[in-house]
Amino acid sequence: MGDPAGIGPEITARALASPALRRTARLAVVGDPEIMERAVHRTRTRLKLRVLDPSRDDLRADARGVALIPSTAEGWGAITPREPTAASGRMAARAIETAARLVLDGRVDGIVTAPISKTALKAAGYPYPGHTEFLGALSRAPETRMLFVGETFRILLATVHMALRRVPDALDVDSLTRTLELAAAALRNFRWGSRAVAVLGLNPHAGEQGLFGDEEARVIGPAIERARARGIRAEGPYSADTFFAHHANRRDLGIVVAMYHDQGLIPAKSGGIGGAANVTLGLPFVRSSVDHGTAFDRAWRGGARAPDPAGLVTAVRVGADLARRAPRRLEWTWP
Amino acid sequence: MGDPAGIGPEITARALASPALRRTARLAVVGDPEIMERAVHRTRTRLKLRVLDPSRDDLRADARGVALIPSTAEGWGAITPREPTAASGRMAARAIETAARLVLDGRVDGIVTAPISKTALKAAGYPYPGHTEFLGALSRAPETRMLFVGETFRILLATVHMALRRVPDALDVDSLTRTLELAAAALRNFRWGSRAVAVLGLNPHAGEQGLFGDEEARVIGPAIERARARGIRAEGPYSADTFFAHHANRRDLGIVVAMYHDQGLIPAKSGGIGGAANVTLGLPFVRSSVDHGTAFDRAWRGGARAPDPAGLVTAVRVGADLARRAPRRLEWTWP
Repeated sequence: MGDPAGIGPEITARALASPALRRTARLAVVGDPEIMERAVHRTRTRLKLRVLDPSRDDLRADARGVALIPSTAEGWGAITPREPTAASGRMAARAIETAARLVLDGRVDGIVTAPISKTALKAAGYPYPGHTEFLGALSRAPETRMLFVGETFRILLATVHMALRRVPDALDVDSLTRTLELAAAALRNFRWGSRAVAVLGLNPHAGEQGLFGDEEARVIGPAIERARARGIRAEGPYSADTFFAHHANRRDLGIVVAMYHDQGLIPAKSGGIGGAANVTLGLPFVRSSVDHGTAFDRAWRGGARAPDPAGLVTAVRVGADLARRAPRRLEWTWP
Repeated sequence: MGDPAGIGPEITARALASPALRRTARLAVVGDPEIMERAVHRTRTRLKLRVLDPSRDDLRADARGVALIPSTAEGWGAITPREPTAASGRMAARAIETAARLVLDGRVDGIVTAPISKTALKAAGYPYPGHTEFLGALSRAPETRMLFVGETFRILLATVHMALRRVPDALDVDSLTRTLELAAAALRNFRWGSRAVAVLGLNPHAGEQGLFGDEEARVIGPAIERARARGIRAEGPYSADTFFAHHANRRDLGIVVAMYHDQGLIPAKSGGIGGAANVTLGLPFVRSSVDHGTAFDRAWRGGARAPDPAGLVTAVRVGADLARRAPRRLEWTWP
């Protein structure tokens, strides 16, 4: 469902209304029943939701409708549409906790998350900057990474939500080697083939032989060497600006590792917001997510202006595909 | 001509062989005659070059061929194909100096530069990291900026060739305000209309209200305010990752200001290397350039494998267009 004051409930309703999308997997919604019913109504979608008790019921959608697993029952009155509040953060967090429980218990094969608000989560007392860290804590995953799965590239971030100023010192040989191992484990888990892991440089022109910065020689190069010694087809560091144009047609390329948020997300999103899904590496289960935010300003505006579910549709498609490919429990040790 | 050991001479020959491109402006080559003749021969292009003396001759191409203005006469024997050397750097530098002289003397309306090698320039004793700084020194321009003119966006870099680690402290309110003034002066010089100047944030999600870095509040925001007070339609700071997808269809957008090299060049080049031309702001004349390097490994390989001139063709088209639009001498003071 995502944050109920944002566009999450509406894009969930619109995405699930698509029979083509429902054929990609057996889909169930986790959320607040009254909020989800209202989202169906507001977006004027033809979607029948059927509230289930996961402790008792089979979770598959059937002719009677798409399963809705209640995570809260606070209802519409608890939230202020278009505003992140402690209540909206709490309801979003409960939905995440409920979904995580289901997947950890093996009741579902993976989860797809709609956008949440860090502000709301914080107001509700949850210290996590986002889903990824939250799910990492719930599943006791020692470390996670964000992978963006787009049509042309899969882009993995070595660092994520930190000031750019902090990035150079946050990169070290150990953690970068671990990132490359997680990339290799992802290629194995998702049966993407024994493909190359390309690593971008941190500095302009990948430092241009040390003219602009030494992280390529001091950190990135050694991490690539160490990964190679462990059987990973790691290559680079590449100049980030030209990489995406030069390597768009390579079939042997598995994952591209970007050093920081915007270096990976500018190309991931340049094909349009709907083009990529965010997949978490390091969790014991499949988790995909939209690659956009709560868009509070566009939430709950009614029929004709209902928000575009394209990002969520991509996330569901990618998540369903990964859940089919992956083993029940994902392992992230390497080799 | 660019660095004679790289692909510059060949892409120059191939670009100039196009009658359609020659119709965009009166084009002349500055370079080493023997090298350029060999490039014509190697690329098997039908191009007649006619060596001229600029102190005497009219520089226009005519039925007898495209004008070639000799900047050196060292010839093929002086260089080692595919290797940056002091000789290749010196010949590239002389071509730049000759072209700069012509445009400063008003003999030509603008210059277009082919790729050079920083390594070769350095070996030849020229301390400039690139054309931009070299031309800045030759024309005594107090400050220059790199603008990438693509089909969808024009992207201006606030900082260029420095380690990423140095970027946060290199940004200050004064220099960023000056960048915004140069953007506004460019909109005026090139008659691009009184459009908006959009400014990207430095940090992920433009700092997300100070959660990841304070440069947006401390530097970028104040520079935008100051520029507005001077009559510039400055806006932002925007989250860089989503900006290009969200603003691709805006007709009132003039220039996007990126905070550092890869933030601007990843989107500038994501549409393919041939998509954007590099234009220097701050020089008293029009100067455009290819957006790629010398590609030594692909130089002087012969006929069928002749390098692709698409980047240079774009640079010539953009340069010709700007030279038509711009006044003879560009002014960069604001307002």
